[in-house]
Amino acid sequence: VDGEFFPGIQKIQYKPDAGPEDVLCFKHYNASEIVYGKSMEEWLRFSVCYWHTFRGTGADPFGFPTLHRPWEDGTDSMENAKRRLGAAFEFFTKLGVKYWTFHDRDIAPEGNDLAETNRNLDEVVDLAVKLQGETGMKLLWGTCNLFANPRYMNGAATNPDAHIVAHAAAQVKKGLEVTKRLGGQNFVFWGGREGYHTILNTDVLAELSHMANFFKMAVAHKKKIGFTGQFLLEPKPKEPTKHQYDYDAMTVIGFLKHFGLEKDFKLNIEPNHTTLAGHGYEHDVVMASAFDMLGSIDSNTGSPDLGWDTDQFPMDVKNCTMVMKTVLEMGGLAPGGLNFDCKVRRESTDLEDMFISHVGAMDAFARGLKSAAKVLQEGVLTRLVKERYLSFSSGIGAKIAKGTATIEECEDYIMQKGEPKAASGKQEKFEAILNHYV
Amino acid sequence: VDGEFFPGIQKIQYKPDAGPEDVLCFKHYNASEIVYGKSMEEWLRFSVCYWHTFRGTGADPFGFPTLHRPWEDGTDSMENAKRRLGAAFEFFTKLGVKYWTFHDRDIAPEGNDLAETNRNLDEVVDLAVKLQGETGMKLLWGTCNLFANPRYMNGAATNPDAHIVAHAAAQVKKGLEVTKRLGGQNFVFWGGREGYHTILNTDVLAELSHMANFFKMAVAHKKKIGFTGQFLLEPKPKEPTKHQYDYDAMTVIGFLKHFGLEKDFKLNIEPNHTTLAGHGYEHDVVMASAFDMLGSIDSNTGSPDLGWDTDQFPMDVKNCTMVMKTVLEMGGLAPGGLNFDCKVRRESTDLEDMFISHVGAMDAFARGLKSAAKVLQEGVLTRLVKERYLSFSSGIGAKIAKGTATIEECEDYIMQKGEPKAASGKQEKFEAILNHYV
Amino acid sequence: VDGEFFPGIQKIQYKPDAGPEDVLCFKHYNASEIVYGKSMEEWLRFSVCYWHTFRGTGADPFGFPTLHRPWEDGTDSMENAKRRLGAAFEFFTKLGVKYWTFHDRDIAPEGNDLAETNRNLDEVVDLAVKLQGETGMKLLWGTCNLFANPRYMNGAATNPDAHIVAHAAAQVKKGLEVTKRLGGQNFVFWGGREGYHTILNTDVLAELSHMANFFKMAVAHKKKIGFTGQFLLEPKPKEPTKHQYDYDAMTVIGFLKHFGLEKDFKLNIEPNHTTLAGHGYEHDVVMASAFDMLGSIDSNTGSPDLGWDTDQFPMDVKNCTMVMKTVLEMGGLAPGGLNFDCKVRRESTDLEDMFISHVGAMDAFARGLKSAAKVLQEGVLTRLVKERYLSFSSGIGAKIAKGTATIEECEDYIMQKGEPKAASGKQEKFEAILNHYV
Amino acid sequence: VDGEFFPGIQKIQYKPDAGPEDVLCFKHYNASEIVYGKSMEEWLRFSVCYWHTFRGTGADPFGFPTLHRPWEDGTDSMENAKRRLGAAFEFFTKLGVKYWTFHDRDIAPEGNDLAETNRNLDEVVDLAVKLQGETGMKLLWGTCNLFANPRYMNGAATNPDAHIVAHAAAQVKKGLEVTKRLGGQNFVFWGGREGYHTILNTDVLAELSHMANFFKMAVAHKKKIGFTGQFLLEPKPKEPTKHQYDYDAMTVIGFLKHFGLEKDFKLNIEPNHTTLAGHGYEHDVVMASAFDMLGSIDSNTGSPDLGWDTDQFPMDVKNCTMVMKTVLEMGGLAPGGLNFDCKVRRESTDLEDMFISHVGAMDAFARGLKSAAKVLQEGVLTRLVKERYLSFSSGIGAKIAKGTATIEECEDYIMQKGEPKAASGKQEKFEAILNHYV
Repeated sequence: VDGEFFPGIQKIQYKPDAGPEDVLCFKHYNASEIVYGKSMEEWLRFSVCYWHTFRGTGADPFGFPTLHRPWEDGTDSMENAKRRLGAAFEFFTKLGVKYWTFHDRDIAPEGNDLAETNRNLDEVVDLAVKLQGETGMKLLWGTCNLFANPRYMNGAATNPDAHIVAHAAAQVKKGLEVTKRLGGQNFVFWGGREGYHTILNTDVLAELSHMANFFKMAVAHKKKIGFTGQFLLEPKPKEPTKHQYDYDAMTVIGFLKHFGLEKDFKLNIEPNHTTLAGHGYEHDVVMASAFDMLGSIDSNTGSPDLGWDTDQFPMDVKNCTMVMKTVLEMGGLAPGGLNFDCKVRRESTDLEDMFISHVGAMDAFARGLKSAAKVLQEGVLTRLVKERYLSFSSGIGAKIAKGTATIEECEDYIMQKGEPKAASGKQEKFEAILNHYV
Repeated sequence: VDGEFFPGIQKIQYKPDAGPEDVLCFKHYNASEIVYGKSMEEWLRFSVCYWHTFRGTGADPFGFPTLHRPWEDGTDSMENAKRRLGAAFEFFTKLGVKYWTFHDRDIAPEGNDLAETNRNLDEVVDLAVKLQGETGMKLLWGTCNLFANPRYMNGAATNPDAHIVAHAAAQVKKGLEVTKRLGGQNFVFWGGREGYHTILNTDVLAELSHMANFFKMAVAHKKKIGFTGQFLLEPKPKEPTKHQYDYDAMTVIGFLKHFGLEKDFKLNIEPNHTTLAGHGYEHDVVMASAFDMLGSIDSNTGSPDLGWDTDQFPMDVKNCTMVMKTVLEMGGLAPGGLNFDCKVRRESTDLEDMFISHVGAMDAFARGLKSAAKVLQEGVLTRLVKERYLSFSSGIGAKIAKGTATIEECEDYIMQKGEPKAASGKQEKFEAILNHYV
Repeated sequence: VDGEFFPGIQKIQYKPDAGPEDVLCFKHYNASEIVYGKSMEEWLRFSVCYWHTFRGTGADPFGFPTLHRPWEDGTDSMENAKRRLGAAFEFFTKLGVKYWTFHDRDIAPEGNDLAETNRNLDEVVDLAVKLQGETGMKLLWGTCNLFANPRYMNGAATNPDAHIVAHAAAQVKKGLEVTKRLGGQNFVFWGGREGYHTILNTDVLAELSHMANFFKMAVAHKKKIGFTGQFLLEPKPKEPTKHQYDYDAMTVIGFLKHFGLEKDFKLNIEPNHTTLAGHGYEHDVVMASAFDMLGSIDSNTGSPDLGWDTDQFPMDVKNCTMVMKTVLEMGGLAPGGLNFDCKVRRESTDLEDMFISHVGAMDAFARGLKSAAKVLQEGVLTRLVKERYLSFSSGIGAKIAKGTATIEECEDYIMQKGEPKAASGKQEKFEAILNHYV
Repeated sequence: VDGEFFPGIQKIQYKPDAGPEDVLCFKHYNASEIVYGKSMEEWLRFSVCYWHTFRGTGADPFGFPTLHRPWEDGTDSMENAKRRLGAAFEFFTKLGVKYWTFHDRDIAPEGNDLAETNRNLDEVVDLAVKLQGETGMKLLWGTCNLFANPRYMNGAATNPDAHIVAHAAAQVKKGLEVTKRLGGQNFVFWGGREGYHTILNTDVLAELSHMANFFKMAVAHKKKIGFTGQFLLEPKPKEPTKHQYDYDAMTVIGFLKHFGLEKDFKLNIEPNHTTLAGHGYEHDVVMASAFDMLGSIDSNTGSPDLGWDTDQFPMDVKNCTMVMKTVLEMGGLAPGGLNFDCKVRRESTDLEDMFISHVGAMDAFARGLKSAAKVLQEGVLTRLVKERYLSFSSGIGAKIAKGTATIEECEDYIMQKGEPKAASGKQEKFEAILNHYV
């Protein structure tokens, strides 16, 4: 199936001097270029997602599908599934990314029962193993779709019906096994239906406990089968549910801690989810990283004026810089990566739009990487931050930082030293310095 | 100072048959009436806050003070502080509430240094002790204002300068001591400046660690002085800071858990903060209660179309019903209560508006209490919820609930039992039933 | 096709003493009961919408259809369309509403070209005429679906391609004609795709001018064919587009005024759209009414914490009261009505949920009507508002109100009379009085 | 008073090669450099606002003043007013801007009555005239503060008390006169209190009519005194009021049209207000410009995650590019300009922060100007947009654009030409091309 679905498009090249309308080449992303001690490819670990890019139809709540792809025959057959997978690997290869991600149900159709569904999945995974071998593509992460099938409408792990929870668990069992087979470097849980629509019909504590037990079953199975990938939980505040339990990074970290799961999971942060939760674009990336819980990033964006998940391609260099600064500070995301959980607008109906959008976003992140590297190399911002907290390296500050001070000591200190002097926070200076690099 | 500041207003009476314009009597709140096994007074534990009601000036970011009170002489003198306190106790008594709340700096002016400030505080607390004795009023909670003074502009417990952290600690030491002296049943921490304005100048992990150590110093001192009140943390997502660390209930529960503080604190939930965090009105009350962490409630409301804290008096009976349903289910809020962290609109400049607003809110909550009691007494909603989760009381459901199921057992179960059937969530039925009671 | 699709459900009865779980009867809506001088039926003019209630599938952006109806055979055939229409009229009749609404494409499938599509539509309209005759049902309004078909993805009247604008116009021509045939009392334009996704590719002024010309063509045709229904424009701020030109009531009124269309259109206000535009629930109803531009209401609600259109059934009596107060003050909505542009939650999968939801909402509005009637009959709020503006009935106030005052007169007035005294706005008193009635 | 308040700071220089920490020089703004046919100074017309920069105290709803300036003696005396004005002109001059803006009450204190207030104002204006003469500074616009004084708490032009409306009118009379004397190029109306807090106590139509009559009085007086500046209305959706009548650009344009004022006013657009109204950053600038109603811009920004007006310095080059692209397309803003309605963060307490913030914002806009100029010079985006609408230049498209097509012609066209083909909107391509320039 090689090469036949995007005949007019060659492997995307790095052409730093290309003109404004040359949107099918990289002007900034140069995979092998060394930046801050590693190649751009190693820092950025881009991944294409299967659901938006190969299963997205352009349908929205007010409109029918707009995206018609040459490899689709309108059926949900196994044949179509395999042809589509071939098209995807052609796309991955021509785009020049090294990783992909999928939900179980993206790549293979459900059958009449779980046994048949699992056979379907195995058969497509056979092909994926082969295509990975031929192309060198790797699986960044696999995940299970526990939200689209009507059986999960009231939740998967948090469904009020144990029969459905059991079904979700059985699905995860298989999902883990095929992810292992494909060498998946991570496995993601996104609980789109784990939450409530009305508190009136919901026992939130029971549901959260069931969810924790559900994850424990998955952790046990992971160990049993020797899957060595990282488990990731992905926060989202709402949509499709009115309230999703995994609201944001700190909520999820608290949940994991409460139920003793914090050693077994890290977080997959999606900035569009972060902004829907009312935070700044980079907030959850920074918070998760600070708690050593940042596992991977769904590198997309929303529109700040819209209250739903638009999963747009990230095109803002300043946002990319902030994310990459955090990534560089933690020494890289591996085994995580930057997964494009993005979809072309439903109006972007040309086949080339699939490439243009990914290329544009990869270039935006490449610029972000280079800017962030320069920020860290020159070290001005880092030094200014360090200086702000200098008082904690000695005296009463060191005791407070270590947790050995008492409240009486603090009072004595004030009685002796008197009123402290507040220092300028200098926000505009920090912003202007950042602009020096972006 | 008895009786002289509200001469035209008598003690507010319960007059169930009063007309629409009779807004200076209770039509629903009847303190001694028994509802669901306790008096309304015991369930509702209303408290008047000192800051809005006696220190609010009506100033806003675009306007000068509008509220001119007869007990104010325009100075921040000790004499004014004492006269004001007298007016407050007259107000409390005439309104017929049993509890009040304050920040240290509400009741006594700061002096030239901490020693003088503490003496000022002691002197006013002497008077407060006397007035409590004379009136039977009790202190629901005390708290320290760690946000208004410019020294705290970059944070109190999370300030980048240890000198300022020490100052905040010294202030809390004294705050705990006077709260103890006044028989305070709780002590609240609201960290209005604990957060960041720009991530560029901030070390979030250092700040959170300092905050945890700060709380540990307070816990140690609480034990040392034998203060038996409950410690409460109050979540708020933002404002005045761009991002506040205590974003919402689940974030704070996670923070407490992470730093080993979960036994020492409960939460003081303010619904206006909950809605600012993007949740439904009752969400944080329900979540905190589910985790046995609900300590007290700041019973106010915002306008859903506004993005800042308006601290309005709660006038929506359905919202009050949802809150009181949770309170009844947990057997009451004591030692917490319903604190009116509310302010009259800056345009509500008549002295009587202070009463009208509190009376209206107390009546709304009294109606909420009665509706919630009926909901629980008739038990329809409770039974319907219980039935939804019935499958977890036996078989595979019971194993999942207990955490003893394995993922293989789940798979076997599905292979045998087949596809589950999704049941209607019946949200509209639940809503219609609630409307039967409200 | 009579009576066969909802066999277990009888005509919904008025049973004022029914219990909490009796959710298939009216406890408040009593069609013939006289309230404020008219029957409840005359004031409320309830309408069921065809799209949500008979074409909604429960699919959402993250999930497949959940609602499976016995009259659906899974095809988009004419046979299915007719059977579905029969089911709908059974539903209307058993529910006891007098009006329905539809989009052209809801009731009949598109054919291979416009001619065939129009023939399909005619054939189904034949049946609708017959069913209306048999049941006494009336058409509150018809409308054209100019947003779901992929051809309209970049807009209908505002499409950058004139060919597509022409197509939309041709569709409206037919839509007007069948609405006339069915005795439609109004015709609605909702421009879901009239707006932009990115300003970068958009000429907003050209698009707005084209939209105005489009409406003028429709007005001309209306007159030509003698259609006497009211034309209505429905504001919505966003979704599916990032920015919709008909943002809110005042924006649309300005648009109509700017292009000389204000005599030919009124507004169809949907409160869920109003809240998405950042206003209070009743705001656009009040504003449209104040400008004598309120034509009809899509009586639904959203969740204030969600940023997309949830089209929930209105269950909040206070909101209903505010809407009905405006309706009573303007003497009724006719020829408009209260159209339930609402959908059962996708989890509300039982057939009875279709009834429960409508019944619950009708009861909520009936309570709102009764409360609003009492507010107006007793006249307290009305009088208090009138008193607030009393100064405009004489002296300088009357001149300002009439527009005959000069700025020098105002200055003279102040030089003589001196500083004005600001009066309390008494918001809490107004709120407490409203609570007396709700 | 020359040169004494910012002794350590020299006139800000253009140093394109300055390093990251050199935040007291321009790296991009080079006043005399010619860009797209005019000097940067002519395109950008920067203005410093007096209220934030010289009257801002750093107080916020939760905190006391933090900003202590050497020219302030803590009084509201005339002497202080004059010294402050001297400091301001030193700042303007050293910063290198040519324009300033003020509210009447910013520059001179209110007296005991209007006559005394007016005398105070005249006296300070005498000094301002002198300082303008000495420095070459010009007044971009004057305005009246009709929102801070408690008398205006319930509105100025829309106050329910005619006495207060008259007071506002008298104040505007004087404001116009002093603005004329200072050679003000515009006069702005921002109606911060023109709106409602609760619809329950408000007659919205009466208030809007009064506001229109109020503006008509001002227009008449403008003509009478021969003031030739442009009148500007500034939209804002809310804050301090719950709902402000001048919600956004399209609302205000509609208002002006409805009341016959559209020839007498243009709009002063503030992007932070635009985003609070739920639009994208540049939306109102684009819309106002499209309707030939863009008069001036308050060049600031908010944080998309905050629901109130933060009035931050604009530091995002992409946003600046979008604004400047519109400005270039309309041939410049004159007599309007880019007014920095921005305040240093209350934590930015150093005197130099006043400069750093303005310099950073001027550089961001200079970069935006240069990027926008390149976009227009190369013409790629412009051409692509033009091509999208090409079908309106002939045939049925031209008739639709001119308003001469009929709906029957459209139907005939479709019957002949058949189904249109939807073209890709290519949003990502447009975004990627924009990134080529930013």
